[in-house]
Amino acid sequence: MRILLINPNTSADMTARMVATARPVLAPDVELVALTAAQGLPYIASRAEAVVAGALTLEMIAAHQEGMDAVVIAAFGDPGLIAARELFDLPVVAMAEAAMLTACMLGPRFSIVTFSPALTPWYEDAVALTGMGARCASIRVPDVGFSSVSDVQHEMEAELVEMTRRAVDEDRADVVILAGAPLTGLAQRVADRVPVPLVDPLSAAVGQAQLLARLKPRPASAGRFARPGPKPATGLSPALGAWIEHLPGGARPNGAHRNGG
Amino acid sequence: MRILLINPNTSADMTARMVATARPVLAPDVELVALTAAQGLPYIASRAEAVVAGALTLEMIAAHQEGMDAVVIAAFGDPGLIAARELFDLPVVAMAEAAMLTACMLGPRFSIVTFSPALTPWYEDAVALTGMGARCASIRVPDVGFSSVSDVQHEMEAELVEMTRRAVDEDRADVVILAGAPLTGLAQRVADRVPVPLVDPLSAAVGQAQLLARLKPRPASAGRFARPGPKPATGLSPALGAWIEHLPGGARPNGAHRNGG
Amino acid sequence: MRILLINPNTSADMTARMVATARPVLAPDVELVALTAAQGLPYIASRAEAVVAGALTLEMIAAHQEGMDAVVIAAFGDPGLIAARELFDLPVVAMAEAAMLTACMLGPRFSIVTFSPALTPWYEDAVALTGMGARCASIRVPDVGFSSVSDVQHEMEAELVEMTRRAVDEDRADVVILAGAPLTGLAQRVADRVPVPLVDPLSAAVGQAQLLARLKPRPASAGRFARPGPKPATGLSPALGAWIEHLPGGARPNGAHRNGG
Amino acid sequence: MRILLINPNTSADMTARMVATARPVLAPDVELVALTAAQGLPYIASRAEAVVAGALTLEMIAAHQEGMDAVVIAAFGDPGLIAARELFDLPVVAMAEAAMLTACMLGPRFSIVTFSPALTPWYEDAVALTGMGARCASIRVPDVGFSSVSDVQHEMEAELVEMTRRAVDEDRADVVILAGAPLTGLAQRVADRVPVPLVDPLSAAVGQAQLLARLKPRPASAGRFARPGPKPATGLSPALGAWIEHLPGGARPNGAHRNGG
Amino acid sequence: MRILLINPNTSADMTARMVATARPVLAPDVELVALTAAQGLPYIASRAEAVVAGALTLEMIAAHQEGMDAVVIAAFGDPGLIAARELFDLPVVAMAEAAMLTACMLGPRFSIVTFSPALTPWYEDAVALTGMGARCASIRVPDVGFSSVSDVQHEMEAELVEMTRRAVDEDRADVVILAGAPLTGLAQRVADRVPVPLVDPLSAAVGQAQLLARLKPRPASAGRFARPGPKPATGLSPALGAWIEHLPGGARPNGAHRNGG
Amino acid sequence: MRILLINPNTSADMTARMVATARPVLAPDVELVALTAAQGLPYIASRAEAVVAGALTLEMIAAHQEGMDAVVIAAFGDPGLIAARELFDLPVVAMAEAAMLTACMLGPRFSIVTFSPALTPWYEDAVALTGMGARCASIRVPDVGFSSVSDVQHEMEAELVEMTRRAVDEDRADVVILAGAPLTGLAQRVADRVPVPLVDPLSAAVGQAQLLARLKPRPASAGRFARPGPKPATGLSPALGAWIEHLPGGARPNGAHRNGG
Repeated sequence: MRILLINPNTSADMTARMVATARPVLAPDVELVALTAAQGLPYIASRAEAVVAGALTLEMIAAHQEGMDAVVIAAFGDPGLIAARELFDLPVVAMAEAAMLTACMLGPRFSIVTFSPALTPWYEDAVALTGMGARCASIRVPDVGFSSVSDVQHEMEAELVEMTRRAVDEDRADVVILAGAPLTGLAQRVADRVPVPLVDPLSAAVGQAQLLARLKPRPASAGRFARPGPKPATGLSPALGAWIEHLPGGARPNGAHRNGG
Repeated sequence: MRILLINPNTSADMTARMVATARPVLAPDVELVALTAAQGLPYIASRAEAVVAGALTLEMIAAHQEGMDAVVIAAFGDPGLIAARELFDLPVVAMAEAAMLTACMLGPRFSIVTFSPALTPWYEDAVALTGMGARCASIRVPDVGFSSVSDVQHEMEAELVEMTRRAVDEDRADVVILAGAPLTGLAQRVADRVPVPLVDPLSAAVGQAQLLARLKPRPASAGRFARPGPKPATGLSPALGAWIEHLPGGARPNGAHRNGG
Repeated sequence: MRILLINPNTSADMTARMVATARPVLAPDVELVALTAAQGLPYIASRAEAVVAGALTLEMIAAHQEGMDAVVIAAFGDPGLIAARELFDLPVVAMAEAAMLTACMLGPRFSIVTFSPALTPWYEDAVALTGMGARCASIRVPDVGFSSVSDVQHEMEAELVEMTRRAVDEDRADVVILAGAPLTGLAQRVADRVPVPLVDPLSAAVGQAQLLARLKPRPASAGRFARPGPKPATGLSPALGAWIEHLPGGARPNGAHRNGG
Repeated sequence: MRILLINPNTSADMTARMVATARPVLAPDVELVALTAAQGLPYIASRAEAVVAGALTLEMIAAHQEGMDAVVIAAFGDPGLIAARELFDLPVVAMAEAAMLTACMLGPRFSIVTFSPALTPWYEDAVALTGMGARCASIRVPDVGFSSVSDVQHEMEAELVEMTRRAVDEDRADVVILAGAPLTGLAQRVADRVPVPLVDPLSAAVGQAQLLARLKPRPASAGRFARPGPKPATGLSPALGAWIEHLPGGARPNGAHRNGG
Repeated sequence: MRILLINPNTSADMTARMVATARPVLAPDVELVALTAAQGLPYIASRAEAVVAGALTLEMIAAHQEGMDAVVIAAFGDPGLIAARELFDLPVVAMAEAAMLTACMLGPRFSIVTFSPALTPWYEDAVALTGMGARCASIRVPDVGFSSVSDVQHEMEAELVEMTRRAVDEDRADVVILAGAPLTGLAQRVADRVPVPLVDPLSAAVGQAQLLARLKPRPASAGRFARPGPKPATGLSPALGAWIEHLPGGARPNGAHRNGG
Repeated sequence: MRILLINPNTSADMTARMVATARPVLAPDVELVALTAAQGLPYIASRAEAVVAGALTLEMIAAHQEGMDAVVIAAFGDPGLIAARELFDLPVVAMAEAAMLTACMLGPRFSIVTFSPALTPWYEDAVALTGMGARCASIRVPDVGFSSVSDVQHEMEAELVEMTRRAVDEDRADVVILAGAPLTGLAQRVADRVPVPLVDPLSAAVGQAQLLARLKPRPASAGRFARPGPKPATGLSPALGAWIEHLPGGARPNGAHRNGG
């Protein structure tokens, strides 16, 4: 089984950390293929930036889906997730949604703890998209700034643990999601210091992608995720344009098919 | 007062019809400046296409906001609306939201009637974004197809009137929105044939943009629509890249300012 | 275009302030006609008082609607709004609803800041009526009392600005409504001292009334706002009684008609 | 124990029927005192009419509360209910709310069946006011008209039973409320012909009023139902004006007191 | 009229206190028959324990329903309530639901004040079950522990009154429920020390049971509370097993009948 | 990794079918251990029966948790799920919840299709428990009965496929859950005959259990799933009684620990 991990940020070191964190949750028969965005922003932190990243994510999936069994969009906030599910035939999973769905099995209410107040509106949107607002106890962000996004999980480790404890004590969270790609791997390191289960979004996403790949769901040919009909496109990347126009060169994932065909 | 109307589709004839429809709702002191997208799709009809259009909308506003008092995003579904409000300093209005807010003053529940079933998921998202799901009686779409998007409002006129009547009788709508840029102007033509008020989304949006421009709200320097800090960007359009990086060349609207400065 | 402004309180000085505040948001072709209640209470501040004021509002509209293009009910809390829309043929707008709808275009969540804790339950009802509870971040009221309702906006100016700031910082409001007829005009004066857009409800209401008057929606002859059939009435004011009984003397607004007739 | 039943309609025969229907649900130690409105409308059927009736209801309670242990507002739609609870010191119950609360103990979801489509918007408001929209399976109204409101429960008996059955079969109601004062007493007569429990709103209201009178709750001196402070009033009925102004002549119920005094 | 009170805890002294507290709310013609569980836990305080208690409650009702007019499940949290309504033919009332429904007539929002933080999740479930989450201002629990569950209402009296006051001041409750069987009777004792009405859940439940017994609703033969068809059961108590299998020995309440038969 | 599958029904053939269906979704390193209930009912189909089954499920987990990495409660409706998570230290998954969470990654709205109308209320409760009511398009049940629960998936295959299609066409489902343990395995067989992805709840539950076992979340020592303190119990099964009393003989899962100890 092959899982395609798309990092829609331009930071290759973040991609490397994700691959390392995913390893313990991969079953023996799974291969992870990771990609870093070539254009865009070093780290998406607003809804405006997420619109730009969403379009890039679609281009990256269009270009690399062939031979894959599932896709992971590796940014918490899930840029392009709904569009990707609508457009492509293989299962697509993303970090925020996967973390929340997984958290729902570990506690009645989850909190999201992250490292920058700028992220709150985007994460609120991700919660709303799942329809799980009633299960979200809080989104907790620090008051203080940080110096390096690639090292923020070490730099703010004490604050993040403290915020997690306050999410439990003050917001009544039963499980906590440590959110944002830069915090990947932190959950394992600090699990013993908090009194409730922690969810690492990347691990959850890679786990859910494996599950979907094993279930082999058929692509929708009806409903809200049915692939749109062919349409002429101007000025898009070649792979995405071809896929939108239903041209023969549009790459297909490994064995996926719609309409039973 | 100058209002910038952005058509994120590539169809110039649709832009022309919008300008004509807007005329009766412009106060004597208002000028409307209309733009058509140079790349993208002739008519956006899915959420994947809306992701692409959202990025284009941001580029168009970045390039043309200077000297404007408000912006209208002229596609029902409101591509890029939240991102634009976050990013830019002048008021931004869009067709679906403006139509729904206006409808709320004309009846307790509104229905949305449109010309293609492909549009439903995208319009559902627009309803959810306003937080007004409880006031939406239904989204009605036809079973039959159409031959030309630019002429669909004449081609399907009888079906659209009939769907509007059924929205009232069967879904208990008290006001009906005739949705989708291609239906611009239809409401005025058929108002006498339905027993409840109709809302033309373009007229509502142009009206709301005037209202905001008269109120002259200050741009947010705090909260969810505070402008993101400067960030390096790779591969974006020059105007959008400059605005995201806070470069001096990033165009400013007419007199808008944040932080009192 | 003629807009009828109804002040359902008996305070004529408040009416005068409203007229002054409305001036900058009137388009060049609009005339505002203002009325003050002859009986009732000097200032409505509870739901019991609003029931009394609602009945008075209906009487005032019945007596003065002729020749008007839209009505503004000029009390935040909107006494009689739904009843008036059901009963009369011309567009009716009210301060709380208009302020909230306008605020929705300026930020994802609004707070309402006002000058007396007694107003909270009534304003909560106004929020519930719009179906926008999920977009209301808070209703903020002061702990301290005030000496004069007609001067409260100057007397409490510092507290009101501070409450607005706390609505942003603590309740995470993105836009703030300065609510209650006695605060009319305050928003313009203090806009520079708060980091988010402010909404003046009277300005918003007068703006929305103009918009509806330009759209010229037809009166509903079906749905929840269809005019009730004629009914004998005992002990009501002459104009309201005549209108409820559908008597010929029941005044009609300027050109409004139902059922195409 | 004395219960005051207020009929805010001007129909004395309806009052008589209510008194007869209430008899079997009165405990041996309870006396029911019934009043009919002297002005207003013969039968309230719209939200505009309910605003007028709400003001009359307050006047009637103000004039007759002395010596009473609880009040029943005997119109389904509950005109003036919230205002009355805010204003007065003794428990106040009304037909729609009491019927819904009682229905909640008899089935997960209730339907409301009534005799005229004109009543739907008003009854929808009553459902919303309880916050129990999620438990309301439907409001069912007939297509056909009726000739006499005082005889409608006999005239439409077959249709009402059929609508009740369809509420169960098609809307999945588990309990049905036969709503509107003119249907008082019907539930007992047709109970054997429908497969779920029926609720007679007048019986439920009289039962709930007895329960509250036995519990002897203290009047609120804080919160949303704390009595408003004294205020000058112009043009109201003597008893209501005196009560609003906190004048000594304002009648007090039997032993009720606020603030422990 | 005979009301069966089921205490699903094994504490006989709690049963005795409940009987004493119920006395003032019993009408002259009502007899209360009280039972204490013979197995299970001395005091249910978690959802796991409530699952165990729910099964015991069904066994107790099955064994003792004959000749009864209504049942009260006398534990706040309402173990087995929905199952009992589905299974049996006579009205079943329980403390949490009855307290909340009663509270809804005394104030727009209620708080629940109790004596142990362990109870919160179970009480949250009870609130959710009624569908009244929007009317619940808070569930307040103390920080400190208690020494004896049977004396906790005296031991913590001061803290409980203080928590009630804070529910009003900080959570904006308009009415407060003093929850948990061990607090039965406390409301009467402390009513003068808090500024809003208090609800004693046992009194409310016994009152609602009388109301339902007077209304004599027919048992459902359709809908969600229709009795399940006969089924073979292994290892259940004799009375419950017989009732589930529809065996002739399955006891029937006084005169209850389904399907008109 | 060892997964404990608990069938709370007494039907051993159903357990065998579940084991067979789970095989293709087990990773190479996973062992599944399956148990059938020794007492209770052959097939749970009501909420009363689910209360009984919930207590049995707790007894079975208490007796067999030792050496296990996760538990699957193998009945759609999830008897005892919340209680088990509260009580035990290892991850617990159940069919309805796992199916719904999985469905959320395959489509915006899911329908539940099952074989008996009696199951609807119980499944509605399962939907409500997840807080995902807004994502549930419908629960579809047949009008006709069936002859054998163990063969119902073959007997009703055509009807079930037709109901699935109608869920897509009429209820606008984007993904369909074929619900109820007796339908286990059907999804794979009929996937080609419906135009949207299908979810087999047993496969989803076994997949989610593997995911949780790989994530190795720590048991909660705070929040709603913290294990209740020790308590004396009367008349429970030995293993459950010992676990509730925190006795040394209470079995522990493989390496699970709370409080870091």
